Amino acid sequence: MDRTQPVELVTMILIQDPQTKQVLVEDKINVPWKAGHSFPGGHIEVGESGLTAIIREVREETGIEVHSADFCGTCEWFDRPGNRRKLGLLYRSSDFSGTPRDSNEGRVYWLPRTELTVANSAESLFELLKVFDGQAAAVLSDTWDGPLRVDDGTNE
Amino acid sequence: MDRTQPVELVTMILIQDPQTKQVLVEDKINVPWKAGHSFPGGHIEVGESGLTAIIREVREETGIEVHSADFCGTCEWFDRPGNRRKLGLLYRSSDFSGTPRDSNEGRVYWLPRTELTVANSAESLFELLKVFDGQAAAVLSDTWDGPLRVDDGTNE
Repeated sequence: MDRTQPVELVTMILIQDPQTKQVLVEDKINVPWKAGHSFPGGHIEVGESGLTAIIREVREETGIEVHSADFCGTCEWFDRPGNRRKLGLLYRSSDFSGTPRDSNEGRVYWLPRTELTVANSAESLFELLKVFDGQAAAVLSDTWDGPLRVDDGTNE
Repeated sequence: MDRTQPVELVTMILIQDPQTKQVLVEDKINVPWKAGHSFPGGHIEVGESGLTAIIREVREETGIEVHSADFCGTCEWFDRPGNRRKLGLLYRSSDFSGTPRDSNEGRVYWLPRTELTVANSAESLFELLKVFDGQAAAVLSDTWDGPLRVDDGTNE
């Protein structure tokens, strides 16, 4: 019996410099959501592991080479009429080498965590930060592009 | 553009009693893999979040009510010729109530961690324990039912 379901797999990572404590941000251009600070990430390709995908995305978007990453949790968006979900695997790392450079996806630079604000950040980044920081195991949205909220384990 | 891919979503949890430090094991019957100790878990249904699924599976299989869980990491099995993957979300919890009971899936009971051995456990349980214990962010198999190994982030 085939028990697969259609899932759009995405990933994102919070990279923190262990010395300066600054975080690596992107200011992505041409995005379909509210512009502002975001973290590196993108789609997990067919046949590619989540960890391989996030290391590749960071390399492509920022020039940084991630050596290892820890898993933080998930974010899920549901399109229940369409029987599909978007599933995000969220990582963090302080184990990397290289110097950030901009890409055609936008500017890339180090920023003090305190300078990340709701106003200057992409939609839902502060909900994702609850997972990155270990305050929540998961966040979700009941719609495909809707705002995220903490998953209390009672949704279906 | 539809960027979904076919994914079989599964989940598993290590539940540890905060007092006795014992772990909740199942001795599942009628399984297609090597029999032996395993942890509660099962399939994530369409439209159901990972956290909701693991809480439901634990309730159905053991009678235990999990109140909160932490994410540990993932396991992935690839069927690359078939362009599909099995993705496991792994959790742990010491925040629960109730007394375990057997189900029609098998016996359920508390066991000292030291009594879990490769010989008396299900296939690959000790690879999964590397994720449950935080020694690895992810494990994977390059085949659909193959043995798991630590994901070093260089696979695709």
